[in-house]
Amino acid sequence: MDVQRRIRIGLVGGGQGSFIAGAHRAAARLDDGYELVAGALSSDPSRALASGLEMRLAPERCYADYADMARREAQRSDGIDAVVVVTPNHLHFPVAKAFLEAGINVICDKPLTTRLDHADELLGLAQRGGLLFMVTHPYSGYPLVRHARELVRSGALGDIRVVQVEYAQDWLAEPLERTGQKQAAWRADPERAGPAGALGDIGTHAFHLAQFVTGLEVEQLAAELTTFVPGRALDDNVQVMLRFKGGARGSLWASQVATGSANRLQVRVFGSRAAIHFDQESPEQLLYTRLGEATQIMRRGATPAGGDAALATRLPAGHPEGYFEAFAQLYADFALAWHARAGGQAFEAEHHLMPTVRDGRQGMAFIDAALRSHRGGCDWVAMS
Amino acid sequence: MDVQRRIRIGLVGGGQGSFIAGAHRAAARLDDGYELVAGALSSDPSRALASGLEMRLAPERCYADYADMARREAQRSDGIDAVVVVTPNHLHFPVAKAFLEAGINVICDKPLTTRLDHADELLGLAQRGGLLFMVTHPYSGYPLVRHARELVRSGALGDIRVVQVEYAQDWLAEPLERTGQKQAAWRADPERAGPAGALGDIGTHAFHLAQFVTGLEVEQLAAELTTFVPGRALDDNVQVMLRFKGGARGSLWASQVATGSANRLQVRVFGSRAAIHFDQESPEQLLYTRLGEATQIMRRGATPAGGDAALATRLPAGHPEGYFEAFAQLYADFALAWHARAGGQAFEAEHHLMPTVRDGRQGMAFIDAALRSHRGGCDWVAMS
Amino acid sequence: MDVQRRIRIGLVGGGQGSFIAGAHRAAARLDDGYELVAGALSSDPSRALASGLEMRLAPERCYADYADMARREAQRSDGIDAVVVVTPNHLHFPVAKAFLEAGINVICDKPLTTRLDHADELLGLAQRGGLLFMVTHPYSGYPLVRHARELVRSGALGDIRVVQVEYAQDWLAEPLERTGQKQAAWRADPERAGPAGALGDIGTHAFHLAQFVTGLEVEQLAAELTTFVPGRALDDNVQVMLRFKGGARGSLWASQVATGSANRLQVRVFGSRAAIHFDQESPEQLLYTRLGEATQIMRRGATPAGGDAALATRLPAGHPEGYFEAFAQLYADFALAWHARAGGQAFEAEHHLMPTVRDGRQGMAFIDAALRSHRGGCDWVAMS
Amino acid sequence: MDVQRRIRIGLVGGGQGSFIAGAHRAAARLDDGYELVAGALSSDPSRALASGLEMRLAPERCYADYADMARREAQRSDGIDAVVVVTPNHLHFPVAKAFLEAGINVICDKPLTTRLDHADELLGLAQRGGLLFMVTHPYSGYPLVRHARELVRSGALGDIRVVQVEYAQDWLAEPLERTGQKQAAWRADPERAGPAGALGDIGTHAFHLAQFVTGLEVEQLAAELTTFVPGRALDDNVQVMLRFKGGARGSLWASQVATGSANRLQVRVFGSRAAIHFDQESPEQLLYTRLGEATQIMRRGATPAGGDAALATRLPAGHPEGYFEAFAQLYADFALAWHARAGGQAFEAEHHLMPTVRDGRQGMAFIDAALRSHRGGCDWVAMS
Repeated sequence: MDVQRRIRIGLVGGGQGSFIAGAHRAAARLDDGYELVAGALSSDPSRALASGLEMRLAPERCYADYADMARREAQRSDGIDAVVVVTPNHLHFPVAKAFLEAGINVICDKPLTTRLDHADELLGLAQRGGLLFMVTHPYSGYPLVRHARELVRSGALGDIRVVQVEYAQDWLAEPLERTGQKQAAWRADPERAGPAGALGDIGTHAFHLAQFVTGLEVEQLAAELTTFVPGRALDDNVQVMLRFKGGARGSLWASQVATGSANRLQVRVFGSRAAIHFDQESPEQLLYTRLGEATQIMRRGATPAGGDAALATRLPAGHPEGYFEAFAQLYADFALAWHARAGGQAFEAEHHLMPTVRDGRQGMAFIDAALRSHRGGCDWVAMS
Repeated sequence: MDVQRRIRIGLVGGGQGSFIAGAHRAAARLDDGYELVAGALSSDPSRALASGLEMRLAPERCYADYADMARREAQRSDGIDAVVVVTPNHLHFPVAKAFLEAGINVICDKPLTTRLDHADELLGLAQRGGLLFMVTHPYSGYPLVRHARELVRSGALGDIRVVQVEYAQDWLAEPLERTGQKQAAWRADPERAGPAGALGDIGTHAFHLAQFVTGLEVEQLAAELTTFVPGRALDDNVQVMLRFKGGARGSLWASQVATGSANRLQVRVFGSRAAIHFDQESPEQLLYTRLGEATQIMRRGATPAGGDAALATRLPAGHPEGYFEAFAQLYADFALAWHARAGGQAFEAEHHLMPTVRDGRQGMAFIDAALRSHRGGCDWVAMS
Repeated sequence: MDVQRRIRIGLVGGGQGSFIAGAHRAAARLDDGYELVAGALSSDPSRALASGLEMRLAPERCYADYADMARREAQRSDGIDAVVVVTPNHLHFPVAKAFLEAGINVICDKPLTTRLDHADELLGLAQRGGLLFMVTHPYSGYPLVRHARELVRSGALGDIRVVQVEYAQDWLAEPLERTGQKQAAWRADPERAGPAGALGDIGTHAFHLAQFVTGLEVEQLAAELTTFVPGRALDDNVQVMLRFKGGARGSLWASQVATGSANRLQVRVFGSRAAIHFDQESPEQLLYTRLGEATQIMRRGATPAGGDAALATRLPAGHPEGYFEAFAQLYADFALAWHARAGGQAFEAEHHLMPTVRDGRQGMAFIDAALRSHRGGCDWVAMS
Repeated sequence: MDVQRRIRIGLVGGGQGSFIAGAHRAAARLDDGYELVAGALSSDPSRALASGLEMRLAPERCYADYADMARREAQRSDGIDAVVVVTPNHLHFPVAKAFLEAGINVICDKPLTTRLDHADELLGLAQRGGLLFMVTHPYSGYPLVRHARELVRSGALGDIRVVQVEYAQDWLAEPLERTGQKQAAWRADPERAGPAGALGDIGTHAFHLAQFVTGLEVEQLAAELTTFVPGRALDDNVQVMLRFKGGARGSLWASQVATGSANRLQVRVFGSRAAIHFDQESPEQLLYTRLGEATQIMRRGATPAGGDAALATRLPAGHPEGYFEAFAQLYADFALAWHARAGGQAFEAEHHLMPTVRDGRQGMAFIDAALRSHRGGCDWVAMS
């Protein structure tokens, strides 16, 4: 048996102190399938170099300019196989575009862009270039989220009637952005975050999760965006009513001022025959209730062998997995696709669970619709 | 010390098999402050008599006609002090009216009536007659609901920002009304239930709880009513977005097709300084989180002495109280008011926690607004 | 259908401020099957009268002496059908004996007595007199405790291997008995409580629950009694290892210094095929796990119709029941037995779930064995 | 700033399918501080080579013999800095001894050996050689376990009174060892597992956790070992009563036949002023209750900056960490010690949290005492 070589990745954004860059790196490392070999970690050359050396990069692969990195990595025989984009939102588009145009696969954070047309452009570029493009909705990597999706697809829930999804945080309950905290500062700045606050930062995760688990598409929505912290330029609380194709109804709540909530992403799906409840803060269990029966506490590690959940499981039941493993699962998904292609096999996105540029584009359509609805006084609008 | 005499009550509606009549009776009995002495338990005279004798009523106080009961009880020197109305919704109005007009205090189930103008009429009658009128929203009787309210009033939560309330049941997930089940049959029948299904049956409880706990009033709402079970005449699922006076936002979800949910009434209130979470199915605990601190599991029986919660508590912490005790607390509230009056003291409704005809009228205004919004395609409408 | 008359009861002990007397009275009242008509509430005649009048007793049935009460009630044509004994432990024996000798049925708190031979004497008296004798282990009245027992009996758990039972409180974590608190004072006083502290007060409940649920009998035990609060005369923490007949093993922990615990009585039973877990502070659910399957959250009110749990259920699922209802169930059990006898039917104790003088005697044997073991340095001793 | 080089490790035992070897490798990789460069993965040379190549080892560092590996690695200039021993128990001693004698640091699974005298010998060897020796009790790596320990040390709990620790699994509830399952087979075989079954496999973890969190030492114990599965040669259920130095009491239960339990390691510590409760299956929360106050749900990621918990934390609150991170923390502890030494600093074991050969030796003393007690009919024996 041949041992697969590690996929070579480069990082754009995410210098010291970046939470999400650290998550990407740990996720890539967990299954030992990747190696980080290049980076554009700062636009300041000396900081770019220093940050790169800390990550044990070779000095010549510590770039101060992402376009330069795209060009030069594309020319190397040992160039990166994919770029990981972890910049503030406004740079996702130009960076991803540069690498796609250089023929390099992309792994990009959400929201995909700050404008829907930019998302469409990236989608087109990736398709025309035949390139892999993953958008990191890590919560879809949890084994029990995948099991929930599988239950829905199997028909175990019957007809889906109601979908309640929410994502509650409280880290922006006070004007943290005015204290100099970097993570908060760019998220609260329309120039860097785009026109959506909580809506884009976490609402898109909730939206993706709802569609991922149910397999349903939102057709229409009505959204109420609120800014509770005085002086804040973007929304910090979002309430959305959802009408799904086929008749299901739902609501989505995303808030970064939900006092007492750390990272409470929950989805509940009620069908005519059964219901499920997943809470990201307790990812080792999935509540499943068949109508008229006792609620079952399904456990990660105790799901059917060969199913999507089992395939995404690294540890036996009772040995808690968490966020890194969910994130690592996305990297495992990407690796599977990449090796398939490297081995000459077609990558059929629709058979895979990996969130792609399509999902990223859908997230932008969700943002776009919510903003349109809000501007109209919380009217019902169609998703485009 | 004089021992207070038991308050004499009569029952209209609620013959054999009625869940809610049994709850009223047990609630009235729990603190030993009431005695049931009369009833109009059926319009069929022989069944009225048989049902009354089962409740150990004197034969001459087993009425087949509520108007007759109102008249004759008003004339007795040992006549009832209050009537308890537990009929299907459409009879609440004429029955309550008859007793008010006979000068008898009223305890009535929710929703108060089936039309807003009827509710206004009852409110006027009670006020002009100087009569007590309690509407039974028993969930407001839980000690920890009262403690939650007290916390909000004390300012501990800071400014209220978001209110999430939901009431999920699944007993109507299938067309139970077509099986002959009596409780389901009248609730699904617009003639007897009025124009609101889940909206009236449980949405009004959720609405009352949200206002009771927060002390805020809903100013505008947008409601989406859905009927998921084919052939059902009334809504079985309701989603409402709420705008409170003062700027708070919220959502309310009430469903009787929420598979896997027995009687899941929950309210979460997020303020600028703290948040609370109460779940009716776990009424012995209240989650309370101050921003930046650990969540506290507040326990019934361990709340400050003399506070509203302590006053509503019958057992030490760890000896579970439940639905009967919450319901009994409403009866204790009513008794307090009744004895105050009997002792010549004024009853200042605003200092009391007992839900009154005003709350009942507010519930009808909620139903009315939700129906108006729904008919307009889920428009925003003002509460009237 | 004839309406059953209410059973007439008298109370010995339990004047103002007594928690347990209030619980008995509310429990007796809940199903409307009892009336309290007599009492010996204090040995001081004027306080006995005052307390009785507060309970709306007739003055001539407010006794200052229990022996007098037993004699005179036995002579009345409308005398009490049963006495309820809620005195401190040391009086259980003489009081119960006096009423048994007067031919009156007994309902008595636990521990049954303070000496094993006294328990044997009461058992003999009740048997010879053909009298009903209930010992109030109210936790066995919970519907889901009864369902747990039924599951074990049905064989669903397979062979029982391990039984873990614990009862943790913290109200005696400090020397409350020295503050004048009455409930603590007598419990900490060997003259009134007998030779066992936490062991008798709550250990007997845990012991009864373990045997009640499993149907197994403890054969041998080794007990370690500790007194953590300086100056306390009796044990406040007990750890016991258990060997059951048939080979099961277990441990029992009872503590009144378990900081952070209100009234945490839990039992877990592990069988070769399934396991159950019941926690008295969450009595609305029973965890049930079949080997290799998901844990099921069984809900009170959703158990099989006609089963022991359903028969002990007063409210639909999701409408929380609690301690009063469990306690009331014991009164319902007693009423069933009493009416059976009154109707000329034999009362076959072994077909009933009501804890009787036999269970009380077993509890005393448990105390006796634990004390013997402890005195021997925590030796293994046989139950007698 | 210089970037630290990765610590070079070699693996003995743990070929394909080994759960624990995978855990060690992922743990070592998580923080990017280690590289795996050598292995003795099988005594069969061709399998040793194949397994090594799968791990991307150089062919010349795939050894079939651990003694050979110790010798040759010790001679290389780029030889391993530490060996990781993940063989069945009976080989821990000879393997660890060989590497210690070759001057190589050791990371070894628990139980340390199969005989107490062997443990003493390893302790002596490590001390005399000035070598690092970590024994992997990964549960002590959880941030909230470390926070619990810190709370105890700070005096927040007051005097420790009761320690309840348990470790419940069910994977051996049936005779899995007879199905050919490798993990079960050697654990059930006294030749490879040593004289202790569940006692050694998981009891030692529970024992370590209890001492780690409380800082107390067990002085005496009485142990009851049971084998429930017919035909099994070793214990599969252990109940132990504990007397700690200083007067605290406790009990320890370890079972591999606890139906319905995956990996339920829990510790509860009750002090005179506060109590804590940690459950390994929910490692993101620690329950903390001060006497008379509400229970606090402490969250990983929200503990005091600079404290032991914060230092062991990789992700913000609400982004679940789990078993790998706890395990990785042990590797981080080891790396800290290794780099301190490499930098010429003294490694003061007593200031570190890393479980060492001393803890491993204590675990063996626990096994030894429990076996002595059991053989004496569950007598009380002193720890040696």
